[in-house]
This record gives sequence, structure tokens and C-alpha cells, in this order.
Amino acid sequence: MSITTPPAGVSSFRDLIESALANSVQLSSDCPDRLRDAIEYSLLAPGKRLRPQLVLMACELCGGNVQQAIPAALAVEMIHAYSLVHDDLPAMDNDDLRRGRPTCHKQFDEATAILVGDALQARAFEMVAQVQPPEIAARCCAELARAVGSEALVGGQSADLASEFQECTLAELEAIHRRKTGALFRVSLRLGAIIADATDQQLAALEDYADNLGLAFQVVDDLLDVSGNEGHMGKRLGKDSAKGKNTYPAILGEAASRELAEKLIEQACTALEIFGDKATALRELAIFVRHRNT
Amino acid sequence: MSITTPPAGVSSFRDLIESALANSVQLSSDCPDRLRDAIEYSLLAPGKRLRPQLVLMACELCGGNVQQAIPAALAVEMIHAYSLVHDDLPAMDNDDLRRGRPTCHKQFDEATAILVGDALQARAFEMVAQVQPPEIAARCCAELARAVGSEALVGGQSADLASEFQECTLAELEAIHRRKTGALFRVSLRLGAIIADATDQQLAALEDYADNLGLAFQVVDDLLDVSGNEGHMGKRLGKDSAKGKNTYPAILGEAASRELAEKLIEQACTALEIFGDKATALRELAIFVRHRNT
Repeated sequence: MSITTPPAGVSSFRDLIESALANSVQLSSDCPDRLRDAIEYSLLAPGKRLRPQLVLMACELCGGNVQQAIPAALAVEMIHAYSLVHDDLPAMDNDDLRRGRPTCHKQFDEATAILVGDALQARAFEMVAQVQPPEIAARCCAELARAVGSEALVGGQSADLASEFQECTLAELEAIHRRKTGALFRVSLRLGAIIADATDQQLAALEDYADNLGLAFQVVDDLLDVSGNEGHMGKRLGKDSAKGKNTYPAILGEAASRELAEKLIEQACTALEIFGDKATALRELAIFVRHRNT
Repeated sequence: MSITTPPAGVSSFRDLIESALANSVQLSSDCPDRLRDAIEYSLLAPGKRLRPQLVLMACELCGGNVQQAIPAALAVEMIHAYSLVHDDLPAMDNDDLRRGRPTCHKQFDEATAILVGDALQARAFEMVAQVQPPEIAARCCAELARAVGSEALVGGQSADLASEFQECTLAELEAIHRRKTGALFRVSLRLGAIIADATDQQLAALEDYADNLGLAFQVVDDLLDVSGNEGHMGKRLGKDSAKGKNTYPAILGEAASRELAEKLIEQACTALEIFGDKATALRELAIFVRHRNT
């Protein structure tokens, strides 16, 4: 089975997210034109919007009002977009193609790309601070900040760069991706659940789902770099090994990596058992992650 | 009169700030060593700590508990440190000396410097989210995010880069510095005041003070670049004109720039009249800004 676009249940949230994203970058004239153009270019580029969907799905699943979770959904997508723009920079992964288009520093310039990332991170916190009620906003700010800081997202990228051309064990690779990819998946689900006033049991189940899904996402990403279609993916492939990146196929081989991805998705779905049938959307999303080709 | 270190009244807050800053970067082993070292190197480098002092002074002046404002004070210093690290990057101002030491990307590397800035911005929001009570934390997060985003701090840096080697009017130069320098001074005072539950009248007076002080700070900065002492300043001087930067001395001449700085400091002090004698610390800080040689 090969799925290019997410299943129907996922799409209703995608429309909501796309229109909210477009509204979120209507900036005043105090934002210089070039910077505004580059922010829009980076944030509104075609994407799967997985992370904001996770926020809204977790909120709905835990009985919350999805509208209240929209600022948090935008925030995690802004963080994701900023991290891609900075990761693509010449001093980092030096990528020239992303989401089928030139990367931000190629389309604009390096200084602008650095500033786009900086501005999107600030905007993410501006969004999450709008969550209602304010006590929940403060909690969401703290959670998001921890998930994207030096001990999570940024720390993972730093560890990933440091591990290039170094042999690394499976445990070390997992520790990198737990921070670099996993932390943002986890906080996406947590924010949605917190906004819905979820129970500790619900939060624990969603974290279990997130951790398995995040790792599966990375295993599939590594597999797609080996055997994906550049046209579908919209980015250069085969670059991991050229850059001396540690990947699951390199450490485990392709077949075992595919098995691992299957197992992780199965575990992600099992973690949702306490929710029964209500968790269909999250299950479908997990299956999409496994079978995606972009 | 030439003052190198701030007056005595200012110093008690400085000690408090220094020790809180040192505590704030005790990171777990999830932060890679090199990143941790680079964060400490950048955040704990000797500095005037003007912005966190403004937070604490505004809080005290408006009758608040200074201890409650410490997270916000740390946050603005983290933002300031991040903006210096990113501004110094080769793609931006390309500076090799800062606070008397090699800039972060010179001491470490460019990727690490980008990540240090990213991590410090996240940490700033983690700090401000800790303000008590949470309703005030949410308000502080929103205020800080706006002050450092694409319509303020980041927008100002973008406009500053775009104006290099372009002729620019005094009004355009002010518009750049209102965002690039002024917004962080303003939000520093606002955060302290908000935490102290200040009245609208107090907030308006502090904003008036901030706007004059922020502009004066920049005029003096430009003057020091022309006629300062590189040893005192701890950064390369004379670079503004080499880089085609628009500066107050270049537009107005040195004598008129000095007069402007005096006038702005006078206006800053006048703005504090509603506070009477209680505003001595803020007045002394303004005079320090005028006569600083670092």
C-alpha cells in the first residue's frame, strides 16, 4: 500500500490548519517585505502538517474544543518550519531543495533564512501564549519551550551534526532522534491533550503513541532517503550517506529497518487502546506515516 | 564624566542577575557538551546586563516583588545574548570579536552558533513561562514574543541589513533602531511593570523612558564605534562605516549626535517624574548609558 495524501479523516483538519496558517502570517508593515515574503515562503510551503494535526487530534480525542487548540497547532508547525529552514543552512545540512522548491537561503539569502527561523520561533510562542485560559497558555509555553530547547530539538540537531562520520550505536541514534524528531511529536500531542484537560492516563497513552510514531517517522525518513522518489519527496535523496549521517538502514539494513518501522507503528496503535474507536484518526495517521512516500 | 561600571545602586541587581544567569544554564546531559559550553560562553560572557536590570528596576519601582521578576529578567538577557550571537554570524554582521572575546562562531563553529541562538531563544520563553501567577506568565510570553519577532527585534535586524550601503533618512534610521534595540528595552521595562501589576499611567511613563533610553543607547553605540576604545569596548570599532551601516554620526555629525544623546537621556529622565525620588536607579542607569565607554 502506498499513500501519498493523508486519509480523508485527516483532511478536514488539514484545511483548517492551512487557512489558519495563512492568516497567522499577516504581518504589519513593521515587518520588512523581504522578511515577510521569506516567512510566507517557508511556512506556507506545501507540507504534510503532521504535527499540527497531532495537536488537534489529541485535543479532540481527549474531549476538548478543537478551536481552542488551533494556536498551539500553528505554533508547532511554525517551530517545525523554523527548524527546517535552519537545518538547511550551509553551515548545517547545506540542502538546496525542500518541499519541492529551493530552500529558503537559496531562494532568498542566508541572513534572511537565519532571521526567518528566528522570527518563526518567536511567532510560535506568540501563538501558544494566546491559548485560553491563560493558565493553560503558560503551561503550554513551558512545555513547548522545553521541547524545542537545548535538551530536545536543538540538542538533537547538535548531536546529529556531531555524529556525522562517527560510528554510532542504535541506542545513540535513537537518542538523537528522540530529541530531534520525537520531542516535537510528543509535545504536539501533549499540547492538544493539555488544552483538552486530559487525564494523566490519557497523557501517558498519547506520549507512548508519540514516542513510537516519532521514531517510526524517522526510520521511514531514512528509508525514503535510500529508496524514495525525489520528485515525490521534494528534496534531494541519497544525501544521508554522502554526508556521513547515521541512519537506520545503515546500521540495521533496509529489511530490518522496514520491520522496525512496522513494529513501531503497531506499538503506536496499541498505545491508543484505552481510547477505543475514538482514536481512529490517530491510528490512520500512524499508518499514513508508515506508508507515506513524501 | 566617564563611567565604566554602573553606579552602586545598580550593582546589587547585577549580582543577583549574574548568579541567576549562571544557575539558569545548568542543563541535563540531554544537552550535548559542545552546545552547553557554547551556550555558557555566550550567555555568561561579561556584559552590562542593562536589560535584566531594567526588568528588576521597573518591578521594584512599581511596588512589585523583585524575586518574582527574575525569570523575566533572565529571559530578556537570553534574548539579547541570542541576538548578538546570530548578528555576529558571517552571513549577518560577520564580527569576530564580542565582549572582548572571539565571537561564538569563531570560538566554536557556525552551526553551533546558530544552535546557541536558537536554544537561548527557547530558554528565554521557558523562563518567562515560569513567572507567577500563570496569567501574568502568559501575558509576559505574548509581550516578549511580539518584541522579538518579525515586526520588532528580528524585523529591525532585517531592515538594518537591507539598509547597508543605502542612504537612509534620520526617520528611517530611527525606525530601524526602534525595532532592533528599542523593542527589547521597552519590553524589559514593561515585563517588570506588568509583574508588579503597574497602572496604565506607570506603564506609559516607563515606555516613554524606554523609547528615549533605547534610542540614546544606539546613538551612543554609534558614537563609540567612531571614537571609542577597542580595549574597553571588547569589540571591533570603526566597522560601521566599512560595512556601509547608517549611523547617527554619519547622518547628523558627531557633535549633533552627542547633543541628541543628551536630549534623549534628559527626556528619559523627565518621563520618570511621576515616580518622584523612587526612580533614582532608573535615572542613574540612563546617565550611565549616556556616559558609558563600553
